[in-house]
Amino acid sequence: MAGLIGTVTLNLALDVTYQVGELVVGGSHRVGAIRQRAGGKGVNVARVAATLGHQVLALGFVGGITGELVAEELFDAGLTALLTPISAETRRTVAIVNESDGDATIFNEAGPTVSGDEWRAFHDRMPWGRLGVLACSGSLPPGVPTDAYAEIAVRARHHDVLTVIDTGGEALLAAAKAGAVVRSNAAELRDALGDDVSVESGARRLTELGAAAAVITDGPHGMVAASHKGTWRALPVEQVSGNPTGAGDACTAVVAAAVAEAPEPDWSLVLQSAVAASAAAVLTPVAGDIDLAAYRRWQPQVTVQAL
Amino acid sequence: MAGLIGTVTLNLALDVTYQVGELVVGGSHRVGAIRQRAGGKGVNVARVAATLGHQVLALGFVGGITGELVAEELFDAGLTALLTPISAETRRTVAIVNESDGDATIFNEAGPTVSGDEWRAFHDRMPWGRLGVLACSGSLPPGVPTDAYAEIAVRARHHDVLTVIDTGGEALLAAAKAGAVVRSNAAELRDALGDDVSVESGARRLTELGAAAAVITDGPHGMVAASHKGTWRALPVEQVSGNPTGAGDACTAVVAAAVAEAPEPDWSLVLQSAVAASAAAVLTPVAGDIDLAAYRRWQPQVTVQAL
Repeated sequence: MAGLIGTVTLNLALDVTYQVGELVVGGSHRVGAIRQRAGGKGVNVARVAATLGHQVLALGFVGGITGELVAEELFDAGLTALLTPISAETRRTVAIVNESDGDATIFNEAGPTVSGDEWRAFHDRMPWGRLGVLACSGSLPPGVPTDAYAEIAVRARHHDVLTVIDTGGEALLAAAKAGAVVRSNAAELRDALGDDVSVESGARRLTELGAAAAVITDGPHGMVAASHKGTWRALPVEQVSGNPTGAGDACTAVVAAAVAEAPEPDWSLVLQSAVAASAAAVLTPVAGDIDLAAYRRWQPQVTVQAL
Repeated sequence: MAGLIGTVTLNLALDVTYQVGELVVGGSHRVGAIRQRAGGKGVNVARVAATLGHQVLALGFVGGITGELVAEELFDAGLTALLTPISAETRRTVAIVNESDGDATIFNEAGPTVSGDEWRAFHDRMPWGRLGVLACSGSLPPGVPTDAYAEIAVRARHHDVLTVIDTGGEALLAAAKAGAVVRSNAAELRDALGDDVSVESGARRLTELGAAAAVITDGPHGMVAASHKGTWRALPVEQVSGNPTGAGDACTAVVAAAVAEAPEPDWSLVLQSAVAASAAAVLTPVAGDIDLAAYRRWQPQVTVQAL
């Protein structure tokens, strides 16, 4: 199982969606359809990777009744999970979606506090020998060290497992220094390296800091990858409108799958798939889903330029 | 325990309150403080009656994990409950409260479907012999007959128990015909009897239909009571600003407590207490709470006129 993709979601959530006629501030609303599913950026990565045919293992913390609902939903979705129990209650997020225009208004609970013992238990049960790659994404729950992702990357290296880490700011620099494949977007890259940095030079800077590679999404301008072998830019397929939430997670899923197959993949090919998957994610209304037919249609059409 | 006040909440809920900086439609919000408690109009009635020193028994349906949380919270609040289990999951309501101005935006789930067997089980476990009065308020869950309150009132009469029923529209007329003490507000009264009816003549019409008495809240104009002995109007104490949600339930609690003591209370005295309790409920930010000191200060100050 060298290809197994572990997806780390330290701040797992039960994502609840309420459909309403139209959200009015100060109003009282009758909720129509209610949907509940496991959420957090790492879960989106796991869903997309599974949809693309890869073996995944969802990792994270679950606590209380809400944690049980998250675990149940992962099971029902066919996602194998290895979850570390915690004493505090798993968080919820609530999305209010207008029936009229599909616009969403989001409320994110901060999440349960993870104790030092629970953080150690998470590491102790990590099945390093089975993992082809470990993809980490999303916010950190209270109690977890702020350099949690860098710590995971360092531990992974000890076990010869590559990590793909989607983060921003200081955590992005720390993950690069720890030798991870780093994933971010243009805004977060500039948060970390300064407003005047270009996406291309920023991605290269991350590899100079130690990152095995850097893959930066650049919104309507496509995507950039850098490794010690070069830098590439992929152009977007076409203007796609829809729900951009989860597009970056689709990119992370493709990157993780590529690294699980080969530690030094052909980044120009990876970018082709990543751009197609991100665009195919925008077509679907729910983060974590992708339009597989659109993905397959677009994947060979993506133009990649070596810089 | 002739004075025991049974409070019926057919559509019990777990009321969840999220504090946010300011609600922006289409935005993503970090949730600050989270509060959860048992809710539904009947629970507000039970809380206020208990705060005023009366013995209460909270009745309703609970299902699933959310039902367990509701039952736990009622227990923690010191409210004795006799709950009928159902197979569907108890509903939640979510209130988003702005930190800046305290304004609330509310989302109400419709509620679980109650089966015919569950509805019969609810009646079968009703402890008629222990009840001094039965107060019914709030929305009906799916599956319960639309004339549920009238059915309860008729069953109660068979057991010589008076009911206080807070409802509107057709259900208000049916409750009156069933001989209940009916509770409503001016808008709901006009929904039932026509736009041109005054609150006083509407209240009298309800007693002519068969209601033991009718108590109608009239917003800033105070409150009206009618029985076969007369009609009274109570004037509001002073302009009170705050949270009007739950003010009507405080009125219902006072009416139920009075009827539990004496089936034909002095309605002018009841109105004094009801106006004071409603105003004291507006002072508190949470429905079901009242400012007991303000209640005691205002209660002797309320002016009641016989019409």
